[in-house]
Amino acid sequence: MSGTDLKNRTLIAEGPAIILCEPQLGENIGMVARAMANFGLAELRLVSPRDGWPNAWATKAASGAIHVVEAATVFDSLETAIADLSFVLATTARPRDIVKPVRGPEEAARDLRRRFAAGERSGILFGRERWGLNNDEIILADEIVTFPVNPAFASLNIAQAVLLMSYEWMKTAEGDPALDAFVNSERIAAERHHLVGLMDHVEQSLDEAGYFFPPERRDRMAQTVRNIFVHMKLQEAEIQTLRGVVAALEGRRRKRKS
Amino acid sequence: MSGTDLKNRTLIAEGPAIILCEPQLGENIGMVARAMANFGLAELRLVSPRDGWPNAWATKAASGAIHVVEAATVFDSLETAIADLSFVLATTARPRDIVKPVRGPEEAARDLRRRFAAGERSGILFGRERWGLNNDEIILADEIVTFPVNPAFASLNIAQAVLLMSYEWMKTAEGDPALDAFVNSERIAAERHHLVGLMDHVEQSLDEAGYFFPPERRDRMAQTVRNIFVHMKLQEAEIQTLRGVVAALEGRRRKRKS
Repeated sequence: MSGTDLKNRTLIAEGPAIILCEPQLGENIGMVARAMANFGLAELRLVSPRDGWPNAWATKAASGAIHVVEAATVFDSLETAIADLSFVLATTARPRDIVKPVRGPEEAARDLRRRFAAGERSGILFGRERWGLNNDEIILADEIVTFPVNPAFASLNIAQAVLLMSYEWMKTAEGDPALDAFVNSERIAAERHHLVGLMDHVEQSLDEAGYFFPPERRDRMAQTVRNIFVHMKLQEAEIQTLRGVVAALEGRRRKRKS
Repeated sequence: MSGTDLKNRTLIAEGPAIILCEPQLGENIGMVARAMANFGLAELRLVSPRDGWPNAWATKAASGAIHVVEAATVFDSLETAIADLSFVLATTARPRDIVKPVRGPEEAARDLRRRFAAGERSGILFGRERWGLNNDEIILADEIVTFPVNPAFASLNIAQAVLLMSYEWMKTAEGDPALDAFVNSERIAAERHHLVGLMDHVEQSLDEAGYFFPPERRDRMAQTVRNIFVHMKLQEAEIQTLRGVVAALEGRRRKRKS
Protein backbone atom coordinates (compact mmCIF):
# COMPACT_ATOMS: atom_id res chain seq x y z
CA MET A 1 0.00 0.00 0.00
CA SER A 2 1.44 3.35 -0.97
CA GLY A 3 1.48 6.49 1.10
CA THR A 4 -1.00 8.03 -1.30
CA ASP A 5 -3.53 5.31 -0.57
CA LEU A 6 -3.11 5.94 3.10
CA LYS A 7 -3.78 9.61 2.64
CA ASN A 8 -6.88 9.00 0.54
CA ARG A 9 -8.25 6.61 3.12
CA THR A 10 -7.71 9.08 5.86
CA LEU A 11 -9.84 11.62 4.06
CA ILE A 12 -12.99 9.54 4.14
CA ALA A 13 -12.62 8.10 7.62
CA GLU A 14 -15.21 9.35 10.07
CA GLY A 15 -14.51 7.06 12.95
CA PRO A 16 -12.88 3.72 13.62
CA ALA A 17 -12.04 1.50 10.67
CA ILE A 18 -14.01 -1.73 10.37
CA ILE A 19 -11.65 -4.57 9.49
CA LEU A 20 -12.98 -7.90 8.24
CA CYS A 21 -10.56 -10.81 8.41
CA GLU A 22 -10.97 -13.19 5.48
CA PRO A 23 -14.66 -12.55 4.94
CA GLN A 24 -16.22 -15.33 2.90
CA LEU A 25 -19.44 -14.10 1.32
CA GLY A 26 -19.64 -10.90 -0.71
CA GLU A 27 -23.21 -10.55 0.48
CA ASN A 28 -22.03 -10.27 4.06
CA ILE A 29 -19.47 -7.63 3.14
CA GLY A 30 -22.27 -5.63 1.52
CA MET A 31 -24.44 -6.00 4.61
CA VAL A 32 -21.52 -4.81 6.72
CA ALA A 33 -21.14 -1.72 4.50
CA ARG A 34 -24.82 -1.01 4.93
CA ALA A 35 -24.66 -1.39 8.68
CA MET A 36 -21.70 1.00 8.77
CA ALA A 37 -23.40 3.58 6.58
CA ASN A 38 -26.51 3.52 8.75
CA PHE A 39 -24.44 4.69 11.67
CA GLY A 40 -22.00 7.02 9.99
CA LEU A 41 -18.92 4.84 9.66
CA ALA A 42 -17.13 4.95 6.34
CA GLU A 43 -13.84 3.10 6.40
CA LEU A 44 -13.94 -0.60 5.53
CA ARG A 45 -10.79 -2.72 5.30
CA LEU A 46 -10.78 -6.28 4.01
CA VAL A 47 -8.08 -8.81 4.76
CA SER A 48 -7.91 -11.42 1.99
CA PRO A 49 -11.59 -11.64 1.08
CA ARG A 50 -12.14 -15.23 -0.07
CA ASP A 51 -13.86 -14.43 -3.35
CA GLY A 52 -11.61 -11.54 -4.35
CA TRP A 53 -12.45 -7.88 -4.68
CA PRO A 54 -14.42 -6.05 -6.03
CA ASN A 55 -17.36 -8.39 -5.54
CA ALA A 56 -20.70 -7.91 -7.29
CA TRP A 57 -22.60 -9.55 -4.43
CA ALA A 58 -21.17 -7.04 -2.00
CA THR A 59 -22.30 -4.15 -4.16
CA LYS A 60 -25.77 -5.64 -4.44
CA ALA A 61 -26.16 -6.32 -0.72
CA ALA A 62 -24.90 -2.87 0.25
CA SER A 63 -28.20 -1.50 -1.07
CA GLY A 64 -27.08 2.06 -1.42
CA ALA A 65 -24.02 2.07 0.80
CA ILE A 66 -21.92 2.06 -2.35
CA HIS A 67 -19.64 4.79 -1.03
CA VAL A 68 -18.44 2.40 1.67
CA VAL A 69 -18.00 -0.56 -0.70
CA GLU A 70 -16.15 1.50 -3.29
CA ALA A 71 -13.80 3.01 -0.75
CA ALA A 72 -13.00 -0.36 0.83
CA THR A 73 -9.32 -1.26 0.82
CA VAL A 74 -7.88 -4.76 0.56
CA PHE A 75 -4.85 -6.10 2.42
CA ASP A 76 -3.10 -9.42 2.29
CA SER A 77 -2.41 -9.60 5.99
CA LEU A 78 -3.96 -8.33 9.17
CA GLU A 79 -0.63 -6.78 10.14
CA THR A 80 -0.67 -4.47 7.13
CA ALA A 81 -4.38 -3.77 7.54
CA ILE A 82 -3.81 -2.33 11.01
CA ALA A 83 -0.36 -0.86 10.37
CA ASP A 84 -1.45 2.77 10.67
CA LEU A 85 -3.75 2.30 13.66
CA SER A 86 -2.77 2.84 17.25
CA PHE A 87 -5.69 1.15 18.97
CA VAL A 88 -7.33 -2.09 17.88
CA LEU A 89 -10.35 -3.96 19.25
CA ALA A 90 -11.09 -7.61 18.46
CA THR A 91 -14.68 -8.83 18.54
CA THR A 92 -15.31 -12.36 19.76
CA ALA A 93 -18.45 -14.33 20.39
CA ARG A 94 -17.10 -16.17 23.38
CA PRO A 95 -14.39 -15.60 25.94
CA ARG A 96 -11.01 -16.85 24.74
CA ASP A 97 -8.06 -18.18 26.57
CA ILE A 98 -6.19 -14.92 26.04
CA VAL A 99 -5.48 -12.37 28.73
CA LYS A 100 -6.79 -9.06 27.48
CA PRO A 101 -9.29 -6.57 28.82
CA VAL A 102 -12.82 -7.54 27.79
CA ARG A 103 -15.39 -4.80 27.16
CA GLY A 104 -19.05 -4.64 26.30
CA PRO A 105 -19.95 -2.77 23.09
CA GLU A 106 -21.19 0.34 24.87
CA GLU A 107 -18.08 0.79 26.97
CA ALA A 108 -15.88 0.03 23.97
CA ALA A 109 -17.70 2.60 21.84
CA ARG A 110 -17.26 5.31 24.46
CA ASP A 111 -13.57 4.55 24.56
CA LEU A 112 -13.34 4.67 20.76
CA ARG A 113 -15.07 8.02 20.75
CA ARG A 114 -12.60 9.40 23.29
CA ARG A 115 -9.70 8.21 21.22
CA PHE A 116 -11.25 9.61 18.05
CA ALA A 117 -11.69 12.99 19.73
CA ALA A 118 -8.04 12.90 20.75
CA GLY A 119 -6.94 12.25 17.17
CA GLU A 120 -6.05 8.62 17.71
CA ARG A 121 -6.76 6.17 14.88
CA SER A 122 -8.60 3.01 15.85
CA GLY A 123 -10.03 -0.09 14.25
CA ILE A 124 -12.36 -2.95 15.10
CA LEU A 125 -11.61 -6.49 13.91
CA PHE A 126 -14.29 -8.94 12.89
CA GLY A 127 -13.60 -12.59 12.08
CA ARG A 128 -14.70 -15.01 9.42
CA GLU A 129 -18.31 -16.06 9.18
CA ARG A 130 -17.53 -19.62 10.16
CA TRP A 131 -15.12 -19.40 13.03
CA GLY A 132 -14.39 -15.79 13.85
CA LEU A 133 -10.90 -14.59 14.61
CA ASN A 134 -7.88 -16.81 15.16
CA ASN A 135 -5.95 -16.44 18.37
CA ASP A 136 -3.00 -15.02 16.40
CA GLU A 137 -5.28 -12.25 15.20
CA ILE A 138 -6.78 -11.53 18.59
CA ILE A 139 -3.29 -11.24 20.02
CA LEU A 140 -2.67 -8.22 17.79
CA ALA A 141 -5.57 -6.34 19.38
CA ASP A 142 -5.41 -4.19 22.48
CA GLU A 143 -8.74 -5.28 23.87
CA ILE A 144 -11.60 -7.67 23.25
CA VAL A 145 -15.22 -6.69 22.70
CA THR A 146 -17.85 -9.30 23.26
CA PHE A 147 -21.61 -9.03 22.96
CA PRO A 148 -24.06 -9.74 25.77
CA VAL A 149 -25.81 -12.48 23.82
CA ASN A 150 -28.07 -15.17 25.18
CA PRO A 151 -25.66 -17.90 26.35
CA ALA A 152 -28.12 -20.53 25.09
CA PHE A 153 -28.21 -19.07 21.59
CA ALA A 154 -25.27 -17.04 20.40
CA SER A 155 -25.16 -16.75 16.64
CA LEU A 156 -24.55 -13.15 15.65
CA ASN A 157 -23.32 -12.93 12.09
CA ILE A 158 -20.64 -10.40 11.14
CA ALA A 159 -23.10 -7.89 9.69
CA GLN A 160 -25.06 -7.99 12.94
CA ALA A 161 -21.92 -7.62 15.02
CA VAL A 162 -20.80 -4.67 12.90
CA LEU A 163 -24.29 -3.19 13.18
CA LEU A 164 -24.18 -3.28 16.98
CA MET A 165 -20.74 -1.73 17.20
CA SER A 166 -21.63 0.95 14.63
CA TYR A 167 -24.84 1.69 16.48
CA GLU A 168 -23.01 2.08 19.79
CA TRP A 169 -20.49 4.29 18.02
CA MET A 170 -23.27 6.54 16.70
CA LYS A 171 -24.85 6.73 20.14
CA THR A 172 -21.68 8.18 21.59
CA ALA A 173 -21.90 11.13 19.22
CA GLU A 174 -24.57 12.78 21.29
CA GLY A 175 -22.79 15.33 23.46
CA ASP A 176 -22.03 13.20 26.45
CA PRO A 177 -20.05 15.28 28.96
CA ALA A 178 -18.56 12.11 30.38
CA LEU A 179 -16.78 11.68 27.08
CA ASP A 180 -14.98 14.95 27.27
CA ALA A 181 -13.38 14.18 30.59
CA PHE A 182 -10.41 12.12 29.57
CA VAL A 183 -9.59 13.46 26.16
CA ASN A 184 -5.86 13.88 25.83
CA SER A 185 -5.05 12.39 29.18
CA GLU A 186 -4.56 8.97 27.62
CA ARG A 187 -1.29 7.93 26.14
CA ILE A 188 -1.52 7.54 22.39
CA ALA A 189 0.14 4.33 21.35
CA ALA A 190 2.35 4.10 18.28
CA GLU A 191 0.87 3.15 14.93
CA ARG A 192 0.62 -0.59 14.88
CA HIS A 193 3.32 -1.27 12.30
CA HIS A 194 5.98 -0.13 14.76
CA LEU A 195 4.74 -2.64 17.27
CA VAL A 196 4.56 -5.45 14.72
CA GLY A 197 8.14 -4.65 13.72
CA LEU A 198 9.27 -4.97 17.31
CA MET A 199 7.38 -8.21 17.85
CA ASP A 200 8.77 -9.71 14.67
CA HIS A 201 12.25 -8.70 15.68
CA VAL A 202 11.96 -10.25 19.13
CA GLU A 203 10.37 -13.39 17.79
CA GLN A 204 12.99 -13.95 15.14
CA SER A 205 15.70 -13.40 17.66
CA LEU A 206 14.10 -15.82 20.10
CA ASP A 207 13.80 -18.39 17.34
CA GLU A 208 17.50 -18.10 16.65
CA ALA A 209 18.23 -18.29 20.34
CA GLY A 210 16.30 -21.53 20.70
CA TYR A 211 13.88 -19.95 23.15
CA PHE A 212 10.84 -21.70 21.76
CA PHE A 213 11.11 -25.18 23.13
CA PRO A 214 9.64 -27.72 22.81
CA PRO A 215 8.67 -27.03 19.19
CA GLU A 216 5.02 -28.02 19.64
CA ARG A 217 4.60 -25.20 22.15
CA ARG A 218 6.17 -22.63 19.85
CA ASP A 219 2.96 -20.96 18.68
CA ARG A 220 1.51 -20.71 22.15
CA MET A 221 4.77 -19.30 23.55
CA ALA A 222 5.07 -16.79 20.72
CA GLN A 223 1.50 -15.66 21.34
CA THR A 224 2.24 -15.12 25.01
CA VAL A 225 5.22 -12.93 24.20
CA ARG A 226 3.35 -10.97 21.53
CA ASN A 227 0.47 -10.40 23.88
CA ILE A 228 2.76 -8.83 26.44
CA PHE A 229 4.05 -6.37 23.88
CA VAL A 230 0.54 -5.44 22.78
CA HIS A 231 -0.44 -4.79 26.39
CA MET A 232 2.35 -2.34 26.82
CA LYS A 233 0.64 0.38 24.77
CA LEU A 234 4.05 1.54 23.69
CA GLN A 235 4.71 4.87 22.12
CA GLU A 236 6.83 5.14 19.04
CA ALA A 237 9.96 6.38 20.83
CA GLU A 238 9.62 3.57 23.33
CA ILE A 239 9.44 0.99 20.60
CA GLN A 240 12.60 2.35 19.05
CA THR A 241 14.32 2.20 22.40
CA LEU A 242 13.17 -1.37 22.92
CA ARG A 243 14.44 -2.40 19.52
CA GLY A 244 17.80 -1.03 20.53
CA VAL A 245 17.54 -2.95 23.78
CA VAL A 246 16.75 -6.20 22.03
CA ALA A 247 19.53 -5.69 19.51
CA ALA A 248 21.95 -5.06 22.34
CA LEU A 249 20.80 -8.09 24.27
CA GLU A 250 21.26 -10.34 21.30
CA GLY A 251 24.64 -8.75 20.59
CA ARG A 252 23.77 -7.67 17.10
CA ARG A 253 24.76 -4.04 17.37
CA ARG A 254 27.10 -1.92 19.41
CA LYS A 255 29.52 -4.80 19.76
CA ARG A 256 32.18 -3.95 22.23
CA LYS A 257 34.80 -2.03 20.45
CA SER A 258 37.46 -4.56 19.80
CA MET B 1 -56.67 -17.35 18.35
CA SER B 2 -58.00 -19.28 21.31
CA GLY B 3 -57.37 -18.64 24.95
CA THR B 4 -55.32 -21.82 25.10
CA ASP B 5 -52.91 -20.47 22.55
CA LEU B 6 -52.51 -17.36 24.59
CA LYS B 7 -51.68 -19.37 27.65
CA ASN B 8 -49.08 -21.42 25.83
CA ARG B 9 -47.49 -18.30 24.51
CA THR B 10 -47.33 -16.78 27.92
CA LEU B 11 -45.26 -19.72 29.07
CA ILE B 12 -42.43 -19.03 26.68
CA ALA B 13 -42.47 -15.26 26.85
CA GLU B 14 -39.35 -13.84 28.44
CA GLY B 15 -39.80 -10.20 27.68
CA PRO B 16 -41.69 -7.95 25.31
CA ALA B 17 -43.38 -9.51 22.29
CA ILE B 18 -41.98 -8.63 18.89
CA ILE B 19 -44.82 -7.88 16.48
CA LEU B 20 -44.22 -7.73 12.75
CA CYS B 21 -46.90 -5.98 10.71
CA GLU B 22 -47.44 -7.62 7.31
CA PRO B 23 -43.89 -8.88 6.88
CA GLN B 24 -43.17 -9.70 3.27
CA LEU B 25 -40.21 -12.08 3.05
CA GLY B 26 -40.02 -15.29 5.05
CA GLU B 27 -36.27 -14.84 5.13
CA ASN B 28 -36.65 -11.60 7.07
CA ILE B 29 -38.97 -13.26 9.56
CA GLY B 30 -36.33 -15.93 10.12
CA MET B 31 -33.65 -13.30 10.61
CA VAL B 32 -35.88 -11.54 13.12
CA ALA B 33 -36.29 -14.81 15.04
CA ARG B 34 -32.54 -15.24 15.10
CA ALA B 35 -31.95 -11.69 16.31
CA MET B 36 -34.50 -12.24 19.09
CA ALA B 37 -32.98 -15.55 20.17
CA ASN B 38 -29.54 -13.97 20.35
CA PHE B 39 -30.78 -11.60 22.98
CA GLY B 40 -33.16 -13.80 24.90
CA LEU B 41 -36.51 -12.75 23.44
CA ALA B 42 -38.89 -15.54 22.57
CA GLU B 43 -42.29 -14.24 21.61
CA LEU B 44 -42.90 -13.44 17.96
CA ARG B 45 -46.28 -12.31 16.61
CA LEU B 46 -47.03 -11.93 12.92
CA VAL B 47 -49.80 -9.78 11.53
CA SER B 48 -50.91 -11.12 8.12
CA PRO B 49 -47.57 -12.31 6.77
CA ARG B 50 -47.76 -11.86 3.00
CA ASP B 51 -46.65 -15.37 2.04
CA GLY B 52 -48.65 -17.23 4.67
CA TRP B 53 -47.46 -19.22 7.64
CA PRO B 54 -45.55 -21.46 8.31
CA ASN B 55 -42.90 -20.41 5.82
CA ALA B 56 -39.95 -22.61 4.86
CA TRP B 57 -37.72 -19.60 4.17
CA ALA B 58 -38.30 -18.33 7.65
CA THR B 59 -37.27 -21.66 9.14
CA LYS B 60 -34.16 -21.72 6.99
CA ALA B 61 -33.09 -18.15 7.81
CA ALA B 62 -33.68 -18.62 11.53
CA SER B 63 -30.58 -20.84 11.56
CA GLY B 64 -31.29 -22.55 14.82
CA ALA B 65 -33.78 -20.16 16.34
CA ILE B 66 -36.46 -22.68 15.49
CA HIS B 67 -38.03 -22.39 18.92
CA VAL B 68 -38.95 -18.79 18.12
CA VAL B 69 -40.27 -19.57 14.63
CA GLU B 70 -42.32 -22.53 15.80
CA ALA B 71 -43.85 -20.59 18.66
CA ALA B 72 -44.74 -17.63 16.45
CA THR B 73 -48.43 -16.79 16.38
CA VAL B 74 -50.36 -15.30 13.48
CA PHE B 75 -53.06 -12.64 13.67
CA ASP B 76 -55.22 -11.08 11.03
CA SER B 77 -55.13 -7.61 12.51
CA LEU B 78 -52.80 -5.53 14.60
CA GLU B 79 -55.60 -4.88 17.08
CA THR B 80 -55.90 -8.58 17.93
CA ALA B 81 -52.13 -9.01 17.94
CA ILE B 82 -51.74 -6.49 20.73
CA ALA B 83 -55.00 -7.27 22.52
CA ASP B 84 -53.37 -8.75 25.63
CA LEU B 85 -50.60 -6.16 25.94
CA SER B 86 -50.75 -3.12 28.14
CA PHE B 87 -47.87 -1.18 26.64
CA VAL B 88 -46.92 -0.95 22.98
CA LEU B 89 -44.00 0.73 21.26
CA ALA B 90 -43.93 1.52 17.54
CA THR B 91 -40.58 1.65 15.74
CA THR B 92 -40.14 4.18 12.96
CA ALA B 93 -37.20 5.18 10.83
CA ARG B 94 -38.13 8.84 10.73
CA PRO B 95 -40.20 11.18 12.86
CA ARG B 96 -43.85 11.07 11.94
CA ASP B 97 -46.49 13.69 12.04
CA ILE B 98 -48.04 12.04 15.08
CA VAL B 99 -47.94 13.45 18.57
CA LYS B 100 -46.50 10.73 20.78
CA PRO B 101 -43.50 10.51 23.04
CA VAL B 102 -40.40 9.57 21.01
CA ARG B 103 -37.67 7.51 22.68
CA GLY B 104 -34.25 6.22 21.74
CA PRO B 105 -33.78 2.43 21.89
CA GLU B 106 -31.82 2.50 25.14
CA GLU B 107 -34.34 4.58 27.04
CA ALA B 108 -37.18 2.51 25.58
CA ALA B 109 -35.52 -0.75 26.64
CA ARG B 110 -35.06 0.47 30.19
CA ASP B 111 -38.71 1.36 30.33
CA LEU B 112 -39.69 -2.06 28.93
CA ARG B 113 -37.58 -3.74 31.58
CA ARG B 114 -39.26 -1.77 34.34
CA ARG B 115 -42.66 -2.74 33.03
CA PHE B 116 -41.61 -6.37 32.68
CA ALA B 117 -40.38 -6.41 36.27
CA ALA B 118 -43.73 -5.01 37.37
CA GLY B 119 -45.56 -7.80 35.55
CA GLU B 120 -46.80 -5.61 32.72
CA ARG B 121 -47.03 -7.14 29.25
CA SER B 122 -45.44 -5.13 26.46
CA GLY B 123 -44.80 -5.38 22.76
CA ILE B 124 -42.75 -3.67 20.06
CA LEU B 125 -44.19 -3.08 16.58
CA PHE B 126 -42.12 -3.27 13.42
CA GLY B 127 -43.41 -2.33 9.98
CA ARG B 128 -43.23 -3.80 6.50
CA GLU B 129 -39.91 -4.03 4.71
CA ARG B 130 -40.94 -1.48 2.13
CA TRP B 131 -42.64 1.28 3.99
CA GLY B 132 -42.69 0.53 7.67
CA LEU B 133 -45.77 1.15 9.78
CA ASN B 134 -48.86 3.01 8.65
CA ASN B 135 -49.99 5.96 10.68
CA ASP B 136 -53.08 3.98 11.74
CA GLU B 137 -50.80 1.39 13.25
CA ILE B 138 -48.55 3.89 14.97
CA ILE B 139 -51.61 5.49 16.51
CA LEU B 140 -52.24 2.21 18.37
CA ALA B 141 -48.90 2.45 20.13
CA ASP B 142 -48.21 4.28 23.38
CA GLU B 143 -44.85 5.62 22.29
CA ILE B 144 -42.49 5.76 19.32
CA VAL B 145 -38.96 4.38 19.23
CA THR B 146 -36.63 5.72 16.63
CA PHE B 147 -33.01 4.80 15.92
CA PRO B 148 -30.12 7.26 15.87
CA VAL B 149 -29.23 6.50 12.27
CA ASN B 150 -27.13 8.56 9.93
CA PRO B 151 -29.61 11.06 8.45
CA ALA B 152 -27.84 10.77 5.11
CA PHE B 153 -28.25 6.99 4.99
CA ALA B 154 -31.10 5.46 6.94
CA SER B 155 -31.94 1.99 5.71
CA LEU B 156 -32.26 -0.36 8.65
CA ASN B 157 -34.14 -3.48 7.65
CA ILE B 158 -36.59 -5.06 10.08
CA ALA B 159 -34.18 -7.76 11.24
CA GLN B 160 -31.61 -5.08 12.06
CA ALA B 161 -34.17 -2.95 13.87
CA VAL B 162 -35.31 -5.99 15.88
CA LEU B 163 -31.68 -6.83 16.59
CA LEU B 164 -31.00 -3.39 18.06
CA MET B 165 -34.11 -3.41 20.25
CA SER B 166 -33.42 -6.98 21.42
CA TYR B 167 -29.84 -6.05 22.18
CA GLU B 168 -30.88 -3.03 24.22
CA TRP B 169 -33.39 -5.24 26.02
CA MET B 170 -30.68 -7.74 26.94
CA LYS B 171 -28.42 -4.96 28.17
CA THR B 172 -31.00 -3.91 30.72
CA ALA B 173 -30.92 -7.28 32.44
CA GLU B 174 -29.44 -6.66 35.84
CA GLY B 175 -27.45 -9.28 37.66
CA ASP B 176 -27.71 -11.52 34.64
CA PRO B 177 -24.69 -13.84 34.68
CA ALA B 178 -24.29 -13.32 30.93
CA LEU B 179 -23.93 -9.63 31.57
CA ASP B 180 -21.80 -9.95 34.66
CA ALA B 181 -19.08 -11.24 32.41
CA PHE B 182 -18.64 -7.62 31.39
CA VAL B 183 -17.93 -6.37 34.85
CA ASN B 184 -14.40 -6.34 33.87
CA SER B 185 -11.39 -7.66 35.56
CA GLU B 186 -8.96 -4.82 35.18
CA ARG B 187 -5.40 -5.97 34.97
CA ILE B 188 -3.68 -5.99 38.31
CA ALA B 189 -0.02 -5.20 37.98
CA ALA B 190 2.55 -7.35 39.74
CA GLU B 191 3.99 -6.32 43.07
CA ARG B 192 6.71 -3.87 42.36
CA HIS B 193 9.61 -6.08 43.41
CA HIS B 194 8.99 -8.35 40.42
CA LEU B 195 9.26 -5.35 38.16
CA VAL B 196 12.44 -4.14 39.80
CA GLY B 197 13.93 -7.59 39.38
CA LEU B 198 13.20 -7.48 35.67
CA MET B 199 14.59 -3.97 35.26
CA ASP B 200 17.77 -4.86 37.14
CA HIS B 201 18.17 -7.94 35.01
CA VAL B 202 17.76 -6.01 31.76
CA GLU B 203 20.03 -3.22 32.89
CA GLN B 204 22.80 -5.53 33.95
CA SER B 205 22.56 -7.35 30.68
CA LEU B 206 22.64 -4.11 28.73
CA ASP B 207 25.71 -3.06 30.67
CA GLU B 208 27.43 -6.26 29.67
CA ALA B 209 26.36 -5.77 26.07
CA GLY B 210 27.78 -2.27 25.93
CA TYR B 211 24.39 -0.74 25.26
CA PHE B 212 24.92 2.33 27.41
CA PHE B 213 27.17 4.47 25.32
CA PRO B 214 28.62 7.06 25.68
CA PRO B 215 29.18 6.56 29.42
CA GLU B 216 28.03 10.04 30.42
CA ARG B 217 24.58 9.28 29.04
CA ARG B 218 24.29 5.99 30.89
CA ASP B 219 21.98 7.15 33.66
CA ARG B 220 19.65 8.94 31.31
CA MET B 221 19.46 5.95 28.98
CA ALA B 222 18.84 3.57 31.85
CA GLN B 223 16.03 5.78 33.10
CA THR B 224 14.41 5.75 29.71
CA VAL B 225 14.45 1.96 29.60
CA ARG B 226 13.17 1.64 33.16
CA ASN B 227 10.39 4.06 32.47
CA ILE B 228 9.17 1.96 29.59
CA PHE B 229 8.95 -1.08 31.83
CA VAL B 230 7.07 0.86 34.47
CA HIS B 231 4.55 2.05 31.90
CA MET B 232 3.84 -1.49 30.90
CA LYS B 233 1.85 -2.32 34.04
CA LEU B 234 3.04 -5.88 33.73
CA GLN B 235 1.50 -8.78 35.54
CA GLU B 236 3.64 -11.24 37.41
CA ALA B 237 3.39 -13.98 34.81
CA GLU B 238 4.33 -11.51 32.11
CA ILE B 239 7.39 -10.44 34.02
CA GLN B 240 8.50 -14.03 34.33
CA THR B 241 8.01 -14.51 30.60
CA LEU B 242 10.03 -11.39 29.85
CA ARG B 243 12.85 -12.53 32.10
CA GLY B 244 12.93 -15.72 30.07
CA VAL B 245 13.01 -13.67 26.89
CA VAL B 246 15.89 -11.54 28.13
CA ALA B 247 17.79 -14.61 29.28
CA ALA B 248 17.34 -16.19 25.85
CA LEU B 249 18.57 -13.09 24.09
CA GLU B 250 21.65 -12.74 26.24
CA GLY B 251 22.40 -16.43 25.85
CA ARG B 252 22.55 -15.86 22.16
CA ARG B 253 24.90 -12.93 22.57
CA ARG B 254 27.23 -14.90 24.79
CA LYS B 255 27.29 -17.71 22.28
CA ARG B 256 28.22 -15.31 19.51
CA LYS B 257 31.04 -13.88 21.55
CA SER B 258 32.66 -17.22 22.29
